[in-house]
Amino acid sequence: MSSLQKAMAEAAEAVESAMDRLLPQTVGPEARLYEAMRYAALGGGKRLRPLLVMQSARLFGVAEACKHRVAAAIEFMHCYSLVHDDLPAMDNSDLRRGRATVHKKFDDATAILAGDGLLTMAFEVLSHPDTHSDPQVRCELVRALAEAAGAHGMVGGQMLDILAEQSVKMPPRSVQNSQPQSGLQTFDIPAITRLQRMKTGEIFHFSCVSGAILGKAPAPLRQALAAYAQSLGLAFQIADDLLDTEGSAAEIGKPTGQDASAGKATFVSILGVERARSQANALAQQAIEHLEPFAEKADVLREVARFVVERRA
Amino acid sequence: MSSLQKAMAEAAEAVESAMDRLLPQTVGPEARLYEAMRYAALGGGKRLRPLLVMQSARLFGVAEACKHRVAAAIEFMHCYSLVHDDLPAMDNSDLRRGRATVHKKFDDATAILAGDGLLTMAFEVLSHPDTHSDPQVRCELVRALAEAAGAHGMVGGQMLDILAEQSVKMPPRSVQNSQPQSGLQTFDIPAITRLQRMKTGEIFHFSCVSGAILGKAPAPLRQALAAYAQSLGLAFQIADDLLDTEGSAAEIGKPTGQDASAGKATFVSILGVERARSQANALAQQAIEHLEPFAEKADVLREVARFVVERRA
Repeated sequence: MSSLQKAMAEAAEAVESAMDRLLPQTVGPEARLYEAMRYAALGGGKRLRPLLVMQSARLFGVAEACKHRVAAAIEFMHCYSLVHDDLPAMDNSDLRRGRATVHKKFDDATAILAGDGLLTMAFEVLSHPDTHSDPQVRCELVRALAEAAGAHGMVGGQMLDILAEQSVKMPPRSVQNSQPQSGLQTFDIPAITRLQRMKTGEIFHFSCVSGAILGKAPAPLRQALAAYAQSLGLAFQIADDLLDTEGSAAEIGKPTGQDASAGKATFVSILGVERARSQANALAQQAIEHLEPFAEKADVLREVARFVVERRA
Repeated sequence: MSSLQKAMAEAAEAVESAMDRLLPQTVGPEARLYEAMRYAALGGGKRLRPLLVMQSARLFGVAEACKHRVAAAIEFMHCYSLVHDDLPAMDNSDLRRGRATVHKKFDDATAILAGDGLLTMAFEVLSHPDTHSDPQVRCELVRALAEAAGAHGMVGGQMLDILAEQSVKMPPRSVQNSQPQSGLQTFDIPAITRLQRMKTGEIFHFSCVSGAILGKAPAPLRQALAAYAQSLGLAFQIADDLLDTEGSAAEIGKPTGQDASAGKATFVSILGVERARSQANALAQQAIEHLEPFAEKADVLREVARFVVERRA
């Protein structure tokens, strides 16, 4: 097992166990809500964001219990966004992580509320004294996550993504036809980059910087992690677009070819497969270079950058 | 103008102006999301929760700017819950505060995201240094609001409310027929009280206690406000049920008779109009008694308790 595989397994186990503790099974009338929240949060996913939290916290010697709680908070936030994005009114996805999405397993109302509950839980966890003894640190985490997840960040990015789909209004294109295509008007590379930075990049940024906040790291080290996160997030998104074009649902655990059939402007639809792939690789390399100040302590984060562009799911 | 009317107008103006500043109009691609968030938050409502924040903060001499920010945060939270509750998958309401609900004015996806954005914004505002110079206070506010709004509180209460409606499955009853009715099985008075304490009571609790948190008030005074909030919240909810039975849509700004036509168990459907009314009055009186430690400084809060059960909308 490589050191990355080991770190991923460790992060997945730690975050699963922390979320299980923070979101206990409940009896009585609200059991259904907790069941839906647990279904959304537990039992699957790459846990990439928790891995980033744990590895960045490791650079500054942060206590295990603190980083596990922050990892759980970021994963609650991520899972809520998946639950809401999958809703019929949004991306209308039936499959996620190889099983029924929350609204298919329960119903739309329960999915909306489970998402709201997970989102709120993220802030409850961060603000709790167990997350860090210094309230200044907890406040900074809350504020950074709210900024990353809100209308300037993830929620705003999802809005742009929906508008992008609506604005294209093109006939469905073949999944195989990934040649650059003109006429994708306002959604050019700068616009897609901005959209993706909001939709996924800001949360990657929080995940990487949270370790520095927990460890009260000096500004230059915090900035190095922020720069790493920015390149990593974009590389991740381009790789995601490539998987949507080239992967199969069985490998990935969710339907593929959706962007193309929706006529959606993506890095791949504009750049084509080859240029998109080389762009993703260049970004991963850039991400790695930003880790220079941490020497060999950041080796797992370096492997993460390579993994993000090489993964098959 | 009574002192209550003056305080209500002042709170409404202060919170409107604070929310307007915190949620500025935006140009560019995310304008639509901000427009929907502003539509949901600005230009209407009794602003009862901001009034409670401001009046409780006044008891402890809290600075204007601090209490206005907390008032805005609680109203963002309240407005998000209205936007999500009105969705077709939930209460399916077309009318709110006398105008189209957010999903009718925009669309379902935008309404879901606008709600998510407002919910997140509430925590962004509370965690910001401008809300209070002491991070311990800010953390306490974040945590208290998260607990009040999450799966143990407001979101859990809304889940119970939906389940209550589904479980009744009775033929629609006449709006006029408000005699006590047996056979409302699991949703008896203790169950409805618990549901309502979660759905609306916890947010009333936060609104009243936030002033004490901001003012670092001693525990007995904080507990007095908590007790006031508990009686007030229940009185408010019973009065709401009475308005749904007896009011008109034109007065209230949203459809009435919905509980009865949904066959929903409410305080009124179980207790009948007369007993429900006397219960609401008794709770308002109880709320007033809890304010004794504050002497005449709490006169507006006393008037709020009377207003809550006497209002016509």
